[in-house]
Amino acid sequence: MTQPSAAALDALKAAVGPGGWTGDPSEIAPWLKEWRGRWNGDTPLMLTPRSTDEVARAVTVCAEHRIPLVPQGGCTGLVGGQIPFGEVLISTRKLRAVRDVNALDDAMTVEAGVTLLEAQLAAATADRRFPLGLASEGTATIGGAISSNAGGTAVLRYGMMRDLVLGIEAVMPDGRIFNGLKRLRKDNTGYDLKQLLIGAEGTLGIVTAATLKLFPVMQSRATAVVGLDSPRAAVELLARAKAETGGGVEAFELMKRIGLEFVLRNIPDTREPLDSTPPWYALIELASGEPGAADSALERLLSEALDGGLITDAAVAQNDAQRGDFWKVREEQSAGQKPEGPGWKHDVSVPVSRVGDFLEEATAAVERFEPGARVSAFGHVGDGNIHYDVLCPPDADRAAFIARWAEGSRIVHDIVDRYDGSISAEHGLGRLKTEEARRYKSPVEIEAMQAVRHALDPLRIMNPAVLF
Amino acid sequence: MTQPSAAALDALKAAVGPGGWTGDPSEIAPWLKEWRGRWNGDTPLMLTPRSTDEVARAVTVCAEHRIPLVPQGGCTGLVGGQIPFGEVLISTRKLRAVRDVNALDDAMTVEAGVTLLEAQLAAATADRRFPLGLASEGTATIGGAISSNAGGTAVLRYGMMRDLVLGIEAVMPDGRIFNGLKRLRKDNTGYDLKQLLIGAEGTLGIVTAATLKLFPVMQSRATAVVGLDSPRAAVELLARAKAETGGGVEAFELMKRIGLEFVLRNIPDTREPLDSTPPWYALIELASGEPGAADSALERLLSEALDGGLITDAAVAQNDAQRGDFWKVREEQSAGQKPEGPGWKHDVSVPVSRVGDFLEEATAAVERFEPGARVSAFGHVGDGNIHYDVLCPPDADRAAFIARWAEGSRIVHDIVDRYDGSISAEHGLGRLKTEEARRYKSPVEIEAMQAVRHALDPLRIMNPAVLF
Repeated sequence: MTQPSAAALDALKAAVGPGGWTGDPSEIAPWLKEWRGRWNGDTPLMLTPRSTDEVARAVTVCAEHRIPLVPQGGCTGLVGGQIPFGEVLISTRKLRAVRDVNALDDAMTVEAGVTLLEAQLAAATADRRFPLGLASEGTATIGGAISSNAGGTAVLRYGMMRDLVLGIEAVMPDGRIFNGLKRLRKDNTGYDLKQLLIGAEGTLGIVTAATLKLFPVMQSRATAVVGLDSPRAAVELLARAKAETGGGVEAFELMKRIGLEFVLRNIPDTREPLDSTPPWYALIELASGEPGAADSALERLLSEALDGGLITDAAVAQNDAQRGDFWKVREEQSAGQKPEGPGWKHDVSVPVSRVGDFLEEATAAVERFEPGARVSAFGHVGDGNIHYDVLCPPDADRAAFIARWAEGSRIVHDIVDRYDGSISAEHGLGRLKTEEARRYKSPVEIEAMQAVRHALDPLRIMNPAVLF
Repeated sequence: MTQPSAAALDALKAAVGPGGWTGDPSEIAPWLKEWRGRWNGDTPLMLTPRSTDEVARAVTVCAEHRIPLVPQGGCTGLVGGQIPFGEVLISTRKLRAVRDVNALDDAMTVEAGVTLLEAQLAAATADRRFPLGLASEGTATIGGAISSNAGGTAVLRYGMMRDLVLGIEAVMPDGRIFNGLKRLRKDNTGYDLKQLLIGAEGTLGIVTAATLKLFPVMQSRATAVVGLDSPRAAVELLARAKAETGGGVEAFELMKRIGLEFVLRNIPDTREPLDSTPPWYALIELASGEPGAADSALERLLSEALDGGLITDAAVAQNDAQRGDFWKVREEQSAGQKPEGPGWKHDVSVPVSRVGDFLEEATAAVERFEPGARVSAFGHVGDGNIHYDVLCPPDADRAAFIARWAEGSRIVHDIVDRYDGSISAEHGLGRLKTEEARRYKSPVEIEAMQAVRHALDPLRIMNPAVLF
């Protein structure tokens, strides 16, 4: 990549004004790293515009001077989509306003730099709920969550970010502002441009604000951890839970015994959720608008499942502290692996009905390829989304193990593909998986994406190294 | 539009083979008319391909010979988007297979010519529910409903068609098949092409099949009609209903007394839902996964609302027949107007919180412009979607009234726009509203749509007269 000229960089600095940029390496450094340590980028300049107009002026200069840029939110992405390697970095984290919260509309408008947690709290001030939650919700921003179509633990009931956005304001690749901040539930007047921007990983525009859907606060909530013999039993239990509650399942998360052991060993203040130690666990959360209804539904579900032998053990959270304990062993699954050595990480999805077959086949194939490898599969089984992580054998040569990552992942991804799955369920493609995705997507699809991208960003200045 | 050559038409006939086309005017005639009688098109040839491959071959020929085409489903659209005027007509109504219904995946794959009612029935065979319903569901097809992003009466809980599609198979403008029939809940691997095709009104491809989301069958369902003094009271009642049920409101429909009178006068087998005759009515339907819960929630909601004076009257359906009666007076609102003479029809949306203000302001403005006009507003107030129809004064010069349609509609649409609304909430733009929409959409938005369209259909052969 050719470096932007000094004149171009000066024009960018002038576009955002004093306080809106820095070239100081020590200030920039934290924003060039991904938390797993897989990327460490570089940039000639970091811009931190404080308004949509400043973003628009900056992108206009980039377009005029053909300066490639990478947009960034909270920098919590796991596929390197937010890390510049020579591009100018444009952070939206200073776009901080909650512009409007309207309870009658079940909608709120917030700027891109508001964190997911802050968005949840803003909704709560109007006695409403914004349901998207992630382990990194205190840092991840609305802008980043939209650009990466974030998922999380409540997708089963409320959908991905794609399903939660009513309107978008964005700066387009030519620097013009697209004001699509509608609070409408229905608007059939041409292509849905916001759907194109959602999940586009910053390649079609920079999201500066969004109008988000809000939901009623639930009156009852019940959480359990259950023990299971197999993922197939989990899928069957999920179907029963949905039928029992008419869709009131908020979360249905799978964990494997080995992943729980990593957490118990490596993360302080965590404890066994069950007295027994089954090979598989599910964390189930039901919620209802009816006081007490979630608790009684959970009780019915679990007692039938225990009687019928579908589950082998169950513990219902008796209070918020215990609910927090249950969630902690789930949310620390990634962090719990870290001290165990390197791992080949996969964020895949398959049709829910095939989760059991996939896990069986993939694990057998991986263990043939890498004897002694420790497979820790966990995740949102209700969405068919498995974080399928292969940890190095305890006494392995770590460098050699890492060198086999691509080959090992290929085995997993090929099986995912045979099950009509996706090699990136919720993390996106970013720098990590774009090339790998070419293997599995059809030419029709890739060429259509390329045509759309070229139509909107003919100079390819927007996050040029990610997507097709 | 220049007519396709005889050789081009022969190539099209050969592409689909015998039985896959007709040039017989009497066979074609029913498919050139819109039911309100506003359009009566013409076409040199109607193709009725029986497989995705036949559709692909036909579109390939259209691309080679630059033959403009109009795709059509059940021909129930209300904005003329499915009516050719010189273009070749490609109907998907013979793509009839239900390919797969999978209860564990909560998904089914059906071809484009399956009707909405048939799709609902197919879901029911697996003890699941496909929730999209419309007055024309016995005729409207899945392909048409996807291309027009259909709404209907359960949007409040389940969303528009856009929200119900997991995967799409479509023939692209160059004749290639895009196979995106995934059953995945999560797939973040680039732009969501299916979202681009949904609501594109056949301008970016012809949808040939889709994988649709299924939902649990509800265990209780309760329906009421209530009387109200104003639409503002309806919006307040809606908010309470959502909070009371944790989102279990399936439908919340508004009707005006005059619209009900049209139905009672003009549609057989209809009856007054209440003993009183309030100025406004709401039809409310709650459903729950818990047996009996919908009934008890409705009872609580209505008794509180009656006590607090928010509603003036209420009748709860005691059985399915009475529920049917309640729905009938709602669903016959359009048909009930027909014998009353011509009307200026509007399918608009505004933020839910502004429905009351909009109705007051628009009706005052319309009555100033056309004294004696009868405004019948009804629709999905839970989505802010109002079918705002202005019927001619009883003794008016009908031709003169019709001649003032555009000017009268402009008044309504300008007010909608001031309330950040949409001039086409669920019907699309089609031939009817594309020009009008230019007035309200920004150049940024229109140019982005044009760029995307040109990128995917550079010859502009796909439904060329609709959208931008």
